[in-house]
Amino acid sequence: MALRTREQYLASLKAMRPNIYKFGERIDDITTHPATRRTVESHARAFDAANDPALAEIFTTVSSFTGEKIYRFNALMSSLEDTLFNMKLKRASYRRTGTCSGGTCVGWNALNVLWAITQEVDREHGTSYQDRLKNWILHAEEKGLVVAGALTDAKGDRSLKASQQPDPDCNLRVVEAKKDGIVVRGAKVMIAGAAASDEIFVVPGTSYGRDEKYYSIAFVVPKDVPGLTIVEARRASDGRELEEGFDIPETGITQGYLFFENVFVPNERVFLFGEYAYTGKFIQYFTANYRACIGACVAGQGDVMIGAAMLMARANGLPVKTFQNKLVEMAINNETTYGAGAGALALGRRHPAGVWLADPLAAHTNKVLVATLPYQTKRLCQDICGGIAETGCFPSYKDYSNPSYGRLIRKYLKAGQKVSAEARARAARLVEWLTLGAGVPGTMHGGGSPDGAKLVVRMETAFEEYAGYAARVAGIDDPVPEPERNR
Amino acid sequence: MALRTREQYLASLKAMRPNIYKFGERIDDITTHPATRRTVESHARAFDAANDPALAEIFTTVSSFTGEKIYRFNALMSSLEDTLFNMKLKRASYRRTGTCSGGTCVGWNALNVLWAITQEVDREHGTSYQDRLKNWILHAEEKGLVVAGALTDAKGDRSLKASQQPDPDCNLRVVEAKKDGIVVRGAKVMIAGAAASDEIFVVPGTSYGRDEKYYSIAFVVPKDVPGLTIVEARRASDGRELEEGFDIPETGITQGYLFFENVFVPNERVFLFGEYAYTGKFIQYFTANYRACIGACVAGQGDVMIGAAMLMARANGLPVKTFQNKLVEMAINNETTYGAGAGALALGRRHPAGVWLADPLAAHTNKVLVATLPYQTKRLCQDICGGIAETGCFPSYKDYSNPSYGRLIRKYLKAGQKVSAEARARAARLVEWLTLGAGVPGTMHGGGSPDGAKLVVRMETAFEEYAGYAARVAGIDDPVPEPERNR
Amino acid sequence: MALRTREQYLASLKAMRPNIYKFGERIDDITTHPATRRTVESHARAFDAANDPALAEIFTTVSSFTGEKIYRFNALMSSLEDTLFNMKLKRASYRRTGTCSGGTCVGWNALNVLWAITQEVDREHGTSYQDRLKNWILHAEEKGLVVAGALTDAKGDRSLKASQQPDPDCNLRVVEAKKDGIVVRGAKVMIAGAAASDEIFVVPGTSYGRDEKYYSIAFVVPKDVPGLTIVEARRASDGRELEEGFDIPETGITQGYLFFENVFVPNERVFLFGEYAYTGKFIQYFTANYRACIGACVAGQGDVMIGAAMLMARANGLPVKTFQNKLVEMAINNETTYGAGAGALALGRRHPAGVWLADPLAAHTNKVLVATLPYQTKRLCQDICGGIAETGCFPSYKDYSNPSYGRLIRKYLKAGQKVSAEARARAARLVEWLTLGAGVPGTMHGGGSPDGAKLVVRMETAFEEYAGYAARVAGIDDPVPEPERNR
Amino acid sequence: MALRTREQYLASLKAMRPNIYKFGERIDDITTHPATRRTVESHARAFDAANDPALAEIFTTVSSFTGEKIYRFNALMSSLEDTLFNMKLKRASYRRTGTCSGGTCVGWNALNVLWAITQEVDREHGTSYQDRLKNWILHAEEKGLVVAGALTDAKGDRSLKASQQPDPDCNLRVVEAKKDGIVVRGAKVMIAGAAASDEIFVVPGTSYGRDEKYYSIAFVVPKDVPGLTIVEARRASDGRELEEGFDIPETGITQGYLFFENVFVPNERVFLFGEYAYTGKFIQYFTANYRACIGACVAGQGDVMIGAAMLMARANGLPVKTFQNKLVEMAINNETTYGAGAGALALGRRHPAGVWLADPLAAHTNKVLVATLPYQTKRLCQDICGGIAETGCFPSYKDYSNPSYGRLIRKYLKAGQKVSAEARARAARLVEWLTLGAGVPGTMHGGGSPDGAKLVVRMETAFEEYAGYAARVAGIDDPVPEPERNR
Repeated sequence: MALRTREQYLASLKAMRPNIYKFGERIDDITTHPATRRTVESHARAFDAANDPALAEIFTTVSSFTGEKIYRFNALMSSLEDTLFNMKLKRASYRRTGTCSGGTCVGWNALNVLWAITQEVDREHGTSYQDRLKNWILHAEEKGLVVAGALTDAKGDRSLKASQQPDPDCNLRVVEAKKDGIVVRGAKVMIAGAAASDEIFVVPGTSYGRDEKYYSIAFVVPKDVPGLTIVEARRASDGRELEEGFDIPETGITQGYLFFENVFVPNERVFLFGEYAYTGKFIQYFTANYRACIGACVAGQGDVMIGAAMLMARANGLPVKTFQNKLVEMAINNETTYGAGAGALALGRRHPAGVWLADPLAAHTNKVLVATLPYQTKRLCQDICGGIAETGCFPSYKDYSNPSYGRLIRKYLKAGQKVSAEARARAARLVEWLTLGAGVPGTMHGGGSPDGAKLVVRMETAFEEYAGYAARVAGIDDPVPEPERNR
Repeated sequence: MALRTREQYLASLKAMRPNIYKFGERIDDITTHPATRRTVESHARAFDAANDPALAEIFTTVSSFTGEKIYRFNALMSSLEDTLFNMKLKRASYRRTGTCSGGTCVGWNALNVLWAITQEVDREHGTSYQDRLKNWILHAEEKGLVVAGALTDAKGDRSLKASQQPDPDCNLRVVEAKKDGIVVRGAKVMIAGAAASDEIFVVPGTSYGRDEKYYSIAFVVPKDVPGLTIVEARRASDGRELEEGFDIPETGITQGYLFFENVFVPNERVFLFGEYAYTGKFIQYFTANYRACIGACVAGQGDVMIGAAMLMARANGLPVKTFQNKLVEMAINNETTYGAGAGALALGRRHPAGVWLADPLAAHTNKVLVATLPYQTKRLCQDICGGIAETGCFPSYKDYSNPSYGRLIRKYLKAGQKVSAEARARAARLVEWLTLGAGVPGTMHGGGSPDGAKLVVRMETAFEEYAGYAARVAGIDDPVPEPERNR
Repeated sequence: MALRTREQYLASLKAMRPNIYKFGERIDDITTHPATRRTVESHARAFDAANDPALAEIFTTVSSFTGEKIYRFNALMSSLEDTLFNMKLKRASYRRTGTCSGGTCVGWNALNVLWAITQEVDREHGTSYQDRLKNWILHAEEKGLVVAGALTDAKGDRSLKASQQPDPDCNLRVVEAKKDGIVVRGAKVMIAGAAASDEIFVVPGTSYGRDEKYYSIAFVVPKDVPGLTIVEARRASDGRELEEGFDIPETGITQGYLFFENVFVPNERVFLFGEYAYTGKFIQYFTANYRACIGACVAGQGDVMIGAAMLMARANGLPVKTFQNKLVEMAINNETTYGAGAGALALGRRHPAGVWLADPLAAHTNKVLVATLPYQTKRLCQDICGGIAETGCFPSYKDYSNPSYGRLIRKYLKAGQKVSAEARARAARLVEWLTLGAGVPGTMHGGGSPDGAKLVVRMETAFEEYAGYAARVAGIDDPVPEPERNR
Repeated sequence: MALRTREQYLASLKAMRPNIYKFGERIDDITTHPATRRTVESHARAFDAANDPALAEIFTTVSSFTGEKIYRFNALMSSLEDTLFNMKLKRASYRRTGTCSGGTCVGWNALNVLWAITQEVDREHGTSYQDRLKNWILHAEEKGLVVAGALTDAKGDRSLKASQQPDPDCNLRVVEAKKDGIVVRGAKVMIAGAAASDEIFVVPGTSYGRDEKYYSIAFVVPKDVPGLTIVEARRASDGRELEEGFDIPETGITQGYLFFENVFVPNERVFLFGEYAYTGKFIQYFTANYRACIGACVAGQGDVMIGAAMLMARANGLPVKTFQNKLVEMAINNETTYGAGAGALALGRRHPAGVWLADPLAAHTNKVLVATLPYQTKRLCQDICGGIAETGCFPSYKDYSNPSYGRLIRKYLKAGQKVSAEARARAARLVEWLTLGAGVPGTMHGGGSPDGAKLVVRMETAFEEYAGYAARVAGIDDPVPEPERNR
């Protein structure tokens, strides 16, 4: 089985029904439209990797089902080593695109976690969800599919459960259960990489209860399934994607709003339906793996920030050594989220179904780091680069290349003697893009909020056991109970 | 003398020669062009303040020369109290515009600092710069002028002095000294508020030496002086300023690149020329005052971030109380830079010329805080607001109001039951604008870099004296010298 | 009137009734006993300052009542400048002793704040507390008294009010109101500098209510008043104070537990009794001034840490330059609390009674900084100094001077070629003392906790006003209310 | 083969030649002398663990040589899992003793790393160091030895190499090479757990060069080998160890200065001699493993700090919930160093000799975290616990139990109604011990300094590769070289 090529990937995207919109208009060819071609390019680079000796080991592997060579982002991860490769792939991907490639990430995690969940459900309830999933995985492996994953619902009023919302569509739900499939309605929002995907893996966005059986669903659909409308979200400085010139890089990410208006999903693509009791566990497994590995994403982007800061220093006429301490601080931030992510995997365990699950306490700890350290790294990057990069503070490409006064900009933009004005401009725009622009990935809330992660840390920490250790070291024999409530 | 009104201010801007460019085109009416009208609006609000009882005391005062009521941003600041009002004006201005109004800030500081410097020069050298300056201040007070200040030169290769640059224009310089004035060439870059200004106060951007007499100049010119071309810099998401709808607020800031191509400045508007020995002191006084007071800017913007976070919490359906700890952390950051700024003023002194000068050690310490704490405040703001605000992750106004599918966006954007979808959208866009967009002021490098500030801290700290204190407390009587260099 | 000398101060301490205990024994001469002589020495250095030209301006002033020269720590502070001198005195004092001198600090603040409070009470209720206070201040000024201040009560169960405690003595209270005075019982705990004081100024430790009239008291007593027993608290490594040699410096601080067992206080020394309604305001004024000025304490100690780190670097054979970045970071921490403290004063106001009051918002913000930054400064200091200083990790003076094996310690302790082994040892012990030992002042909770300070920040921040600013900038016209409680 | 029991361990310590000194005196029985019995108790608890079902898996394993059950701290670690157990042992040990047990840590790491190094040397040079080492390991496994590890030399002038020092003994060296062994002289300083050890594993403290063959040595000696004198270092508040009562816990750590005065080491115990070229690699392997695993130490102590803070909150009468956010922050710090340590192991590799080696970049990153985060954790602990714990601010046990006035202390120390005064006192003393006292381990500089770790991060980071990524994303095709030096 030959691996899908970049060209085949682009051709299949082109062939799909156009159902993606931005700025009030339908995008007819997402591979060339300026609003989407950058995210497609980012994903396409994953296909190039199969031919790059330095990357092939990271981006490809062998199917545990067929023994065939496949893209790693379609594979089950059945060992610590496999899962560490998830991190390596993310870091390599960020390093080569500067930003997120959601279509080689979330669907991949979803299929792995569901592999475990479906086995649990099948064993308890005699269902055969895992077989359905296996068939789909074989299909994905064979085609080398790019699969976005869709968790986050619109949610409505955050103080109410899904079943209590005035508008019941606020969370994606089954509106009709047919013999051969289900009909779903609702929205999944802020879905990274949907535009560049072949298919969308839809999973529960939260833990549901008894009254929310119709919300407790997992399934996969082609991106252009009838009834699905995708509207791309804005990103910082996304207007520049419509411009010519160097004011924005050639890679990028998009985040889509997916509107399901009575979309039919055939049974063989439904991997959970009604099993509300397993939604909590799904979230638990999913977030643990996701939040462990996301440390590689911010590390990879941080690597690019280090590189960008070096370029800017030189473009400003200063040796990199001047900023060595700050660059090392940046590196330490990167290696912290990367190392802590790897640690969360190492402290994990193999699920009986044969997939690797990260340790929740360590993984959610890493989420808090991921929500904190990149802000410091960005600040350090801006600190090194100077005012021109801090807020992208110089005229546009249109001005730069203006036949009348562009010469003035070019004259005064040149700083270091060995670096061209354009290289300085490009480096400064890169820093802006990484720290204030469309390249900033939503790592604070992507895959869930740090406050949610802290809640898990709280739940997973054995506080009373620790109080016991302290009492023993202090030589306190009597119990030290909580005070009674006096008021 | 009646104070200038908003209408008079706008009329005089309209009447000027159009010499401002952006996106490759000349802006013919800066008061209405979408690329500049927001910064004009920000500055115009300072004129409204004269009629607002809560603000009049802050925005107006009495001329120390004439006893007439004037705008405070044209006045000499001759006491601690006067200078604290500079901070209050900045904070009030940020609170009401969300961002920077450079035209009521930098020129004001420049005229005050030059008041001291010119007196020193005049006393030493028998010149009469201070008289010229006085005449101009009287003019500024009478007209209620908005005056941007221009320090930062293009600089060229940062490892070389101005006089060593391959291109001597890299720092603004006198190319011809005439009997009645000087002719200058060069660029001043990243000049905040130039578009909205009546005049531009040009001062040295660094400390110059004996070989740099022709760079050692201070003067003021009308914004539309012949030979001056202004090209506006980009800012994050500045493309949205050209769009309709709520994707960007109605206020704003611009930062211009000012190209001086043989501009003639008559002697009466030249306040320093050739006095290189005073440029270092000018920088010293200027940065101390500027870096003390800038604490109020970031505090004022931080206040708006607190408010925006509250709006978002409610729009998400959550009570503000949920985030009380984070909001207090944000407030503490704001009050830290505000308080430390006030402290730098309080520890300052009155210059013999009668203007107040901040304490350099405390002021440059505050600059380091200003370059650090707002990053934390922004992170906290994004943390509270959720993914929708973190990266502005929802569709554009054009999509929101699309007749075909806009209904889906509006349906799913509504979260809190008592808050409209549009209010949620506007609040989220505000957060994006403040933390990732065109509202982000360049406080890291604006007015100089934190590394420069640290250098001043290093110079102003009495390290050896401290070693002496330590030795005495430790009971060390013998000297503890630096080691000899062994290699 | 001649200022009291060091010798007179020591003589009067010697002459007092011995009522101080530590390690199970009564201390008969606190000026020579090793457990107390260091704190006495610290305070005695304030008297030396009157004769030191560099310090006389800081440590002495002129009485606003008599026009006589007095020690500043007995004076009313009636202007911003006066209050800034409080900060300067604290910093100078820390620089020269390495630690806290509570007897020249808390009583001073108490008398100033009570000057304002008594005037308010007298005007409202026709009492004459201020006259009594004035008489006592005249006495204090004349004698040059060292006056500790006692706020903190034992408190008992923190979840109950004073009037609800099972043991009513948990907060100091009047047990009998006589015609000529009051009889008090209870404990004031952790009182800095009591041992070195002539008198003790006792004030309310919290805001009291209607049921707590008998707790609402302020008065001053001689330290050896009948019925008062003082037991000194332990401090880190305080056992070393009983040893010989260089393992601990010659200065120090103590914190006493003051047990009042039916102490009689004559009316002329009672400045508040029963006026519960003013206790909150007392706390408010007191903490604002205290928490502004405490920024100078930690700055002064931080200065000594900088110096100690320099000595250690050199003693280790390394030039100070190696650690320049860290030293500047330390300096920035010091100047931050100092500057923010000065700012809190500058933003304050003069009370109608003629004393200066700090701005609460800025002052409590500074308390949070004071509870945070010194921990970073200590860490930096240990970082520079190496393992030998981090935990004081080398043998004792007794071992160092041991006739048999002391030679080995001395041989191997010498590091830098120009610095003696003993100087290295002393510098390392100083760092240990400052960062892990008896020199560490209780700045986290001294004068109240950072959580209490954050509560004030919360109360003093105009949150809803800020939400209004945000709404205006965002163009949100409709109200954005708190959500209703759904559950 | 039966595992050594606590009793056997204590008996063998008792039987050794007394060569340990503190406070100027020889310690004749280290198992009972108050200056050493606490560290012995800490180590003895490792022997108890063999009988504790919850700990046996952590503290024991099976010999890879003999297949016998042995103490894990004598075993080769040949897999990731084995090495993770090193971390688990450290955390468990800290939880049960509150502090460091160097004798089950450093020697263990040394034997593992030398296993790899000796194989490399033997293969290259035909030596048989590994056989010698194997014999010793078999002996250690059989006896269940506690083995301290000694790296740090006295060093002398840090700006000079060992071979350049005026006093050549500043680094431990061979003074005579005999046929049957070597004679060494010098000092190893700050050696944790030496007092409680059976043997001492001596290894190079730095990377040596061609001129330092006689410094390039590794060997192991019995703790009481002739010619070795050990003087214990001071620790904060170590004087309390000589006192009675609850002012200090019953566990502890010591750090000794080891003076080698012509100590003879027979060849079979010499594992490296003269192989200077391998000293750098030894340091590299050793520090990577050590700095990965040390994350477990500070996590384990942090667990006890969490517990201690809970006890104090309750003893103060407050529910733990009040401080939930801070406790979670503490937990996140603990899990960060633990997770990042585990990550450094997971990213490591198996050496051809069969031992596991941590990834240097990730391990040294963790060292920086270990030198930083515990300071925050301590601050949070003090923040929660209040003034009484911050500086241990209450009277001594002698005062507490004084027959005359002790009743007053006991009366006023009681706070929470359900917790005794003594429990409150013990909890407060524990916090003092952990944050300011003898329980503070030297994690900043122990096993090397954070600055050294940063140097490794700098060396291991592929900076130029990152600049390449940035250039590619920015679309910069031309090289961006370092500027030429202009001056």
